[in-house]
Amino acid sequence: MNMRPTELTTASDWLNKPVKALDSIAMYAAEERQKQLTKPAGSLGKLEKVAIRLAGMQGRVFPRADKVCIAVFAADHGIAAEGVSAFPQAVTAEMIRNFARGGAAICVAARFIAAPLAVYNLGTVSPTEGLPNVINHQIAPQTANFLYHPSMTPAQLTTAMDIGRSAVGDALTQQADKAQRLDLFVAGEMGIANTTSATAIASLLLSIAPEKLAGPGTGLDASGVSHKAMIITRAIEFHRSELKGFEQKGSIGDPLIALQYFGGFEIAALTGAYLACAQEGVTAVVDGFICTVAALLACRINPQAADWLILSHSSAEPAYAMLLDGFVSQPLLNLELRLGEGSGAAIAVPLIRLACALHNEMATFEEAAVSAAVSTIEAT
Amino acid sequence: MNMRPTELTTASDWLNKPVKALDSIAMYAAEERQKQLTKPAGSLGKLEKVAIRLAGMQGRVFPRADKVCIAVFAADHGIAAEGVSAFPQAVTAEMIRNFARGGAAICVAARFIAAPLAVYNLGTVSPTEGLPNVINHQIAPQTANFLYHPSMTPAQLTTAMDIGRSAVGDALTQQADKAQRLDLFVAGEMGIANTTSATAIASLLLSIAPEKLAGPGTGLDASGVSHKAMIITRAIEFHRSELKGFEQKGSIGDPLIALQYFGGFEIAALTGAYLACAQEGVTAVVDGFICTVAALLACRINPQAADWLILSHSSAEPAYAMLLDGFVSQPLLNLELRLGEGSGAAIAVPLIRLACALHNEMATFEEAAVSAAVSTIEAT
Repeated sequence: MNMRPTELTTASDWLNKPVKALDSIAMYAAEERQKQLTKPAGSLGKLEKVAIRLAGMQGRVFPRADKVCIAVFAADHGIAAEGVSAFPQAVTAEMIRNFARGGAAICVAARFIAAPLAVYNLGTVSPTEGLPNVINHQIAPQTANFLYHPSMTPAQLTTAMDIGRSAVGDALTQQADKAQRLDLFVAGEMGIANTTSATAIASLLLSIAPEKLAGPGTGLDASGVSHKAMIITRAIEFHRSELKGFEQKGSIGDPLIALQYFGGFEIAALTGAYLACAQEGVTAVVDGFICTVAALLACRINPQAADWLILSHSSAEPAYAMLLDGFVSQPLLNLELRLGEGSGAAIAVPLIRLACALHNEMATFEEAAVSAAVSTIEAT
Repeated sequence: MNMRPTELTTASDWLNKPVKALDSIAMYAAEERQKQLTKPAGSLGKLEKVAIRLAGMQGRVFPRADKVCIAVFAADHGIAAEGVSAFPQAVTAEMIRNFARGGAAICVAARFIAAPLAVYNLGTVSPTEGLPNVINHQIAPQTANFLYHPSMTPAQLTTAMDIGRSAVGDALTQQADKAQRLDLFVAGEMGIANTTSATAIASLLLSIAPEKLAGPGTGLDASGVSHKAMIITRAIEFHRSELKGFEQKGSIGDPLIALQYFGGFEIAALTGAYLACAQEGVTAVVDGFICTVAALLACRINPQAADWLILSHSSAEPAYAMLLDGFVSQPLLNLELRLGEGSGAAIAVPLIRLACALHNEMATFEEAAVSAAVSTIEAT
């Protein structure tokens, strides 16, 4: 195995902090309650499962999904120079301005679910100073081009993960009513070329060749997708000697090395945020392909982190389905979304709230004097 | 082909009233707007499609899904005597009482989406007089057992379909603010044994054998499912001479005959309601298996009715997927629901509202000064 760079082991000791345990008693009681509600057993499908999981996370039989905070992490990618995106690199900063003005999909979804939206700029080629609701933490104008260099230095990786962790801390402290806990943390990302970065990481974590994983991202055609896969293949080959442990399935490679060599600042921040959520006992609602790669990184760093993640939707990016092993439950929605920004996770929030409302407010068979199912059907 | 009974052709002339045409100009303008919004083209997947369809239905580029009414049709089934349900027949009336008290899933969902809920009792073995929000239209205590008799007389069928139509009329007139149109009509059903009824109808409409369609409904085990399929097979065989035109795929059998011989009062009401929605220009959000069979009946009576239907979710009932040919779009959600009552359709409403909000409120590339996708990717 690789030796982890000294800077990482020193500065990121919080990564090894244990994850909060679920409340198995509350979860069991919630499961029993579901069986008593006036409906055929199991007939609310995934909504039952999400309510039961939330009960375990929140340590109460009647879970809530009222208080939600959204953080979007944005950053530029050196690999964009290789022509791997359908959009020019300037769009990262342009979209940050669109976030600040409230015109992006995540802004509309945030208003719809009445959740505050914080945007973290971790480094864009064009700066974004002085915008409302945008927190600037410029690590560098962009990551290095991973075709020739590791994306980040170990120190940059640490900084980016720390920003993700502090975003969770910000969400926990910014609640207007301190008595009300933060129920859900929604994270999103923006960064031109970041499906290329996420696909490279997925290729290492899953030991699947880039040409089997690369997809259109924001809208590449078939030759664009081939080019993207070729760039990732060349990059992994270039860094091969530093990527020990990633040679085969059931990889024992260091997830932090995959992240440092191929990640974006925003992907590192997401990974840090998901780990921090699990440590703090906050439910994280995971968006599409890029966020799910970051969530997979978090679970490789600490497998118990999976307990705190709700996958919101099946991304239309073809590699998404290959990421799902190792998560506790399957994605709630499949709306063929491939937008990013955390939009799919925010879109799932009303359904999570409905899952809680149904769980908390439906009458039991006893309360409603409704007959339960007969155990044996009398056949004629 | 069968001669349609005289009572039907006389009393149900409204069935042949033409369906309202979509506004193709508004739909085209909505489609153009979607291409201008600050996101990769098509990246909001099914949410884009639903917003564009709503624009066509509502004749405006900026559609809404604010005003929603819910109608649940309930009735008992003679076929329940054959032991085809996991629950005793008394549950139909017990659940109507649960609807009146607000304890059922559809009540919770109705409150969540702030939609009024009207319950129509079309005939239960145990009466349900004097309950709030329950409208009693007792056609008979239950349908006839279709193993030996047609479920309904032609006059009963006409009455049931008329009740469905008048429920749409009620929803249109009960809007507090008459200036605001009814945006969505959500219909649901309750009736012990009604998956058996719906499966028999589906078997005729699709020319697929009952054993390939029958599912667990509210929770039958494998032998219960086999028994249910056998009962339906025997019933269709019993009535074979009356079912001309249903012998093969691409059936030209009369959908009203299938409905009269095997339907429930609530299924006939749903069919009438969907046709009335299409005639009145009201969007109907279709729930799971039973509602979708009724929607298929409506489309067999008038294929243009499909324009006005939004399928809300893929039911966990195995035959559901076989119903989907001939509808305009695929179901929005797959939450593994199999509850009925219109619950899945009501659960989809927040997502339809979000589809409208995203469509109406997102900034365009021009408004936000965001660069569009580059048409050709420069490969290195």
